[in-house]
Amino acid sequence: MVDITHKNNTLRVATAQAIVKTSSENTIAMIKNNEIPKGNVFEMAKAAGLLGVKKTPDLLPDCHPLPIEYTGIDYEIDGLNIIISMTVKTIYKTGVEVEAMHGASIVALTMYDMLKPVDKGVEISTIKLLQKTGGKSSFKAPKE
Amino acid sequence: MVDITHKNNTLRVATAQAIVKTSSENTIAMIKNNEIPKGNVFEMAKAAGLLGVKKTPDLLPDCHPLPIEYTGIDYEIDGLNIIISMTVKTIYKTGVEVEAMHGASIVALTMYDMLKPVDKGVEISTIKLLQKTGGKSSFKAPKE
Amino acid sequence: MVDITHKNNTLRVATAQAIVKTSSENTIAMIKNNEIPKGNVFEMAKAAGLLGVKKTPDLLPDCHPLPIEYTGIDYEIDGLNIIISMTVKTIYKTGVEVEAMHGASIVALTMYDMLKPVDKGVEISTIKLLQKTGGKSSFKAPKE
Amino acid sequence: MVDITHKNNTLRVATAQAIVKTSSENTIAMIKNNEIPKGNVFEMAKAAGLLGVKKTPDLLPDCHPLPIEYTGIDYEIDGLNIIISMTVKTIYKTGVEVEAMHGASIVALTMYDMLKPVDKGVEISTIKLLQKTGGKSSFKAPKE
Amino acid sequence: MVDITHKNNTLRVATAQAIVKTSSENTIAMIKNNEIPKGNVFEMAKAAGLLGVKKTPDLLPDCHPLPIEYTGIDYEIDGLNIIISMTVKTIYKTGVEVEAMHGASIVALTMYDMLKPVDKGVEISTIKLLQKTGGKSSFKAPKE
Amino acid sequence: MVDITHKNNTLRVATAQAIVKTSSENTIAMIKNNEIPKGNVFEMAKAAGLLGVKKTPDLLPDCHPLPIEYTGIDYEIDGLNIIISMTVKTIYKTGVEVEAMHGASIVALTMYDMLKPVDKGVEISTIKLLQKTGGKSSFKAPKE
Repeated sequence: MVDITHKNNTLRVATAQAIVKTSSENTIAMIKNNEIPKGNVFEMAKAAGLLGVKKTPDLLPDCHPLPIEYTGIDYEIDGLNIIISMTVKTIYKTGVEVEAMHGASIVALTMYDMLKPVDKGVEISTIKLLQKTGGKSSFKAPKE
Repeated sequence: MVDITHKNNTLRVATAQAIVKTSSENTIAMIKNNEIPKGNVFEMAKAAGLLGVKKTPDLLPDCHPLPIEYTGIDYEIDGLNIIISMTVKTIYKTGVEVEAMHGASIVALTMYDMLKPVDKGVEISTIKLLQKTGGKSSFKAPKE
Repeated sequence: MVDITHKNNTLRVATAQAIVKTSSENTIAMIKNNEIPKGNVFEMAKAAGLLGVKKTPDLLPDCHPLPIEYTGIDYEIDGLNIIISMTVKTIYKTGVEVEAMHGASIVALTMYDMLKPVDKGVEISTIKLLQKTGGKSSFKAPKE
Repeated sequence: MVDITHKNNTLRVATAQAIVKTSSENTIAMIKNNEIPKGNVFEMAKAAGLLGVKKTPDLLPDCHPLPIEYTGIDYEIDGLNIIISMTVKTIYKTGVEVEAMHGASIVALTMYDMLKPVDKGVEISTIKLLQKTGGKSSFKAPKE
Repeated sequence: MVDITHKNNTLRVATAQAIVKTSSENTIAMIKNNEIPKGNVFEMAKAAGLLGVKKTPDLLPDCHPLPIEYTGIDYEIDGLNIIISMTVKTIYKTGVEVEAMHGASIVALTMYDMLKPVDKGVEISTIKLLQKTGGKSSFKAPKE
Repeated sequence: MVDITHKNNTLRVATAQAIVKTSSENTIAMIKNNEIPKGNVFEMAKAAGLLGVKKTPDLLPDCHPLPIEYTGIDYEIDGLNIIISMTVKTIYKTGVEVEAMHGASIVALTMYDMLKPVDKGVEISTIKLLQKTGGKSSFKAPKE
């Protein structure tokens, strides 16, 4: 694990994206109409994601435990795809990119698990960092 | 959570895939030559993945806890990509698809976290089920 | 921890109750209209409760880990109170009373945490077993 | 999760109460005489409660992880009831009310689990905040 | 992780030992007289050990999750040493040696942590398997 | 749990040692040649140890959660013994001795679990603090 004892606290913000690809318009309609039998997909996946962000250092060996000071989730439906944006903030010595990516993956996996009974063709695609600020270098993913 | 009290135990096998896309041949060479500063990427990500599979029901609300009876990880390097295959087996009333997908995602995220200091362009793509047997319906992802 | 190696698997069902007492009709109205800023109270508390049931043996020293085969949550609004009923099922050597009570308490605490910004007077009252079947003795709480 | 990046660290103290209601004087006598077969109820429940306070952000989605700097437990026997007071302190940007309430509930549930073999009528009643200081507003529960 | 899908359930019992070596008779006297400021050492370490046994597969990558059906702890004081014996039972396809050893180590570490303020010279020595039955081969540590 | 609200942050470093005693030169040769069937012992045990350090407050009741800012593991082979040194750093109000000792014990237990199929005589010996700096008193174990 990288030694960060000599570093200073700064505000760090990271936004990661995960995309859940469904295979039918019916799935998207059921989600919108809150008809998925296991519950409200957006709300339950949000709860799982908020918890998941906090568990990142329990799962990734080199990841420093740090004070998560904000977590927010946005959903956007784009055709058959659900685009998840997970933003995490801390004031600490190291960034929250991996926390945001892990949180986004847990949101996506919870959706997969909830949608599985009604759509066998769901995939998770493109878990990536969209943006980070704070720290030595900022980053913004290029437009596609 | 779906009621499975009436179901019978059968052998269930699931294989999931996650792809880690690096952005330079140098990254791949460093991995192959065991030169990544945080440690041996394949071995440490395997340890994280074995633990991650077992933690799936701690992270996904509707997922049944079940006896994980085998977990195996294969790596394949394909150009700039590392293809992770995670296989999970149980003899139980419900399948292990989500466990395999979660495990594959944790392996991929551990790699991302270990590679981040040497390659800022790593992405995780296409976490999906490759194959499952046991249960009501088998599944094999179509060739691409 | 009690030795259960000599016991047989039977279907065990337990239902526990927790009551969240709010202090104003406005709180109840905001919940019903999905206006609580932290999110949908019923859905997020359900996700937390499903995970909480599974974590019971991580928190209570003498509690046996066991295969949770069903978890269900019902909500009833009664004046200023929200009545939570948590039902858990397993086919195992020991019962799921404590799992149901722990799950109900986590649902109630999640509600408390979500409602705190809009209602300072929330309390949790009466976490108790309503009913259990299976095992040596059945139980049904007396009508009040 | 509420954004607390702009807030300042202050000393926060919260005390929560949970009441375990036993159904017979024999139960109280067995506890006092350290005769409960599963072990010393007060000491084991204290250990579970100290761990439980620290796990609060693993269980409640919106709860910020924070540095628990003190946890203390007091027990009072009042007739057939055991009154648990759990005090938590931190120097941080947000309070520890929910941590104190969660800790008190884990102490109470551990007692329930340990007493179950000797008393089928145990209930947990009235998990509530007794007092908090620090933060924008102090709070003291009204005398009953 | 070893594939155990083809194996049969049998009763497995394992007993492991850990030794906590204190550095003064005063420490032993304080333990016996229940005067350690952090609480009753034997009871709190027992609670931590019961929980620790159940968390073994969360910490050791290759360890199968399995139904812990009994956990028992014995303490013996031998001069300045405290000898911890942890016995674990399951009816499953694989043994509980590592669970017993992990549990014994957590009991010993909890003691270390509780005794540290009154005795700076505490060490943990000799965590080993004393005995196992069930499975392909039994084992009994040679007398010393 | 000791009240540390009045204490100041200082750099704290602790190094703990655990010794894994194998019973044959063949075991040591297999480890060195990376021939242990479960995987690379040093790398997988390192991953488990990094995670284990962070989980210390989840397992030891009185242990304060704190920001782990560095974790490092060294291995030395000395005849049939593997000497594990685990160093942990934080800038906080309390030390990291117990974290280093717990991490070292998890590394040792992971080795035991990975070596068990090829060597039935493995033991863990002498988990102790080697050195600590920061805080009221420094400590250095006497040379043996």
